[in-house]
Amino acid sequence: MGNSIDQDFSASERAALYRTIYSRRDVRGQFTSEPVDEAMLSRILMAAHHAPSVGFMQPWSFIIVRADETKQKVHALFETAHAEATEMFDGEKRETYRNLKLQGILEAPINLCITCDKDRAGPVVLGRTHIPEMDLYSTVCAVQNLWLAARAEGLGVGWVSILDQERLKAVLGLPENVEPVAYLCLGHVSHFNDQPDLQKSGWRKRLPIGELIHFEALGASADDAFATQLLALLHQEQARIEGGDF
Amino acid sequence: MGNSIDQDFSASERAALYRTIYSRRDVRGQFTSEPVDEAMLSRILMAAHHAPSVGFMQPWSFIIVRADETKQKVHALFETAHAEATEMFDGEKRETYRNLKLQGILEAPINLCITCDKDRAGPVVLGRTHIPEMDLYSTVCAVQNLWLAARAEGLGVGWVSILDQERLKAVLGLPENVEPVAYLCLGHVSHFNDQPDLQKSGWRKRLPIGELIHFEALGASADDAFATQLLALLHQEQARIEGGDF
Repeated sequence: MGNSIDQDFSASERAALYRTIYSRRDVRGQFTSEPVDEAMLSRILMAAHHAPSVGFMQPWSFIIVRADETKQKVHALFETAHAEATEMFDGEKRETYRNLKLQGILEAPINLCITCDKDRAGPVVLGRTHIPEMDLYSTVCAVQNLWLAARAEGLGVGWVSILDQERLKAVLGLPENVEPVAYLCLGHVSHFNDQPDLQKSGWRKRLPIGELIHFEALGASADDAFATQLLALLHQEQARIEGGDF
Repeated sequence: MGNSIDQDFSASERAALYRTIYSRRDVRGQFTSEPVDEAMLSRILMAAHHAPSVGFMQPWSFIIVRADETKQKVHALFETAHAEATEMFDGEKRETYRNLKLQGILEAPINLCITCDKDRAGPVVLGRTHIPEMDLYSTVCAVQNLWLAARAEGLGVGWVSILDQERLKAVLGLPENVEPVAYLCLGHVSHFNDQPDLQKSGWRKRLPIGELIHFEALGASADDAFATQLLALLHQEQARIEGGDF
């Protein structure tokens, strides 16, 4: 077919994708000072630019932050927000929270803010008519594409969300209609942890996926052969991945 | 290092990821009736469950829709919302919009709603303290993981966003605190189009990525060697991918 593309992926191609997904980490503490080269950065930005977007809106922009002055300003916003957040936790959780390493703004050679311009395609956007957040969701898809591409390149990415959004907009010169969806720290790493940091530190456990599967409606189960087999396979698969076999 | 994982990906593993990203499509009109087997569905659900999530919250649930009765109800919601949306476009755009195929709810053997439970981890969530939407964004990361995994499995995915959210919540039995982030159509396909449908139909063009790159602040450029080289590479890379070489 002239206008279609090759459909089939090989087993090794599929395995590469799954390996990327299962070994991706939110990196906070493992950044090295090794510079990120232009070619690597261009590849992961291009992956982001090929995310799905509502109405083919492509609402994203990429603000590349390299200057220490900008990083220091954002880091100060983090420090303020982090102190506010600490007060929201009770008792033991508060002490644990205070001691977690949650960002690598100053250590990461590159910070990257991925924004969403709500006016990118005019006021009426195909597919956004009934869910106004669809443009933000498209931008998150770009973040996830970039995150996976970075992992395959050996680059760590950390998403810093403990920031006052209005103040971040002021630092990055964003007008009213442009939202800072993700502020990311990006760079080479000493290593990738075998588990997510918050799992490793005992903050929360990976949920058993069986508890997250419903049929036809939330809270409804199914006991036909397909549903039974699906749940059995999910259980096996989760045990395998938790065991590091991916 | 005992607690770290193998860092390096081979060139062919990286290529597999990029091929997945560049050949992923929002599928509306190419679903076949071939059943999706349990093993394939379990693998893509597990990929979704390994998305990043704020505070390791894992706010997602997966509602698997197979019954024609449920699909008919959601399809009726689409028809209503689509008629409302049609009226929002002017002149020529309206006719084009009316004639676009925008969903495959009834044809796709499986529909899947990925939801976000805002109460999954209690009222105070690490990393959500300053951006309340972070749980929704985590759920979108799960959608994108699943979408890429489906592509590598040869399965098409289409995101249907032209739906009244409150009515959809009623159909799927979602309480106040659970949001239906993505309603997806899922199944084998006759083929994947070489370009996104909305690009093919002339609705919108892929934006030149150079216009989306900023340095330190929105609207600010840079003329150092790194920035110049990065923009040149992005330009080359976009031409290559548009040419189908990926």
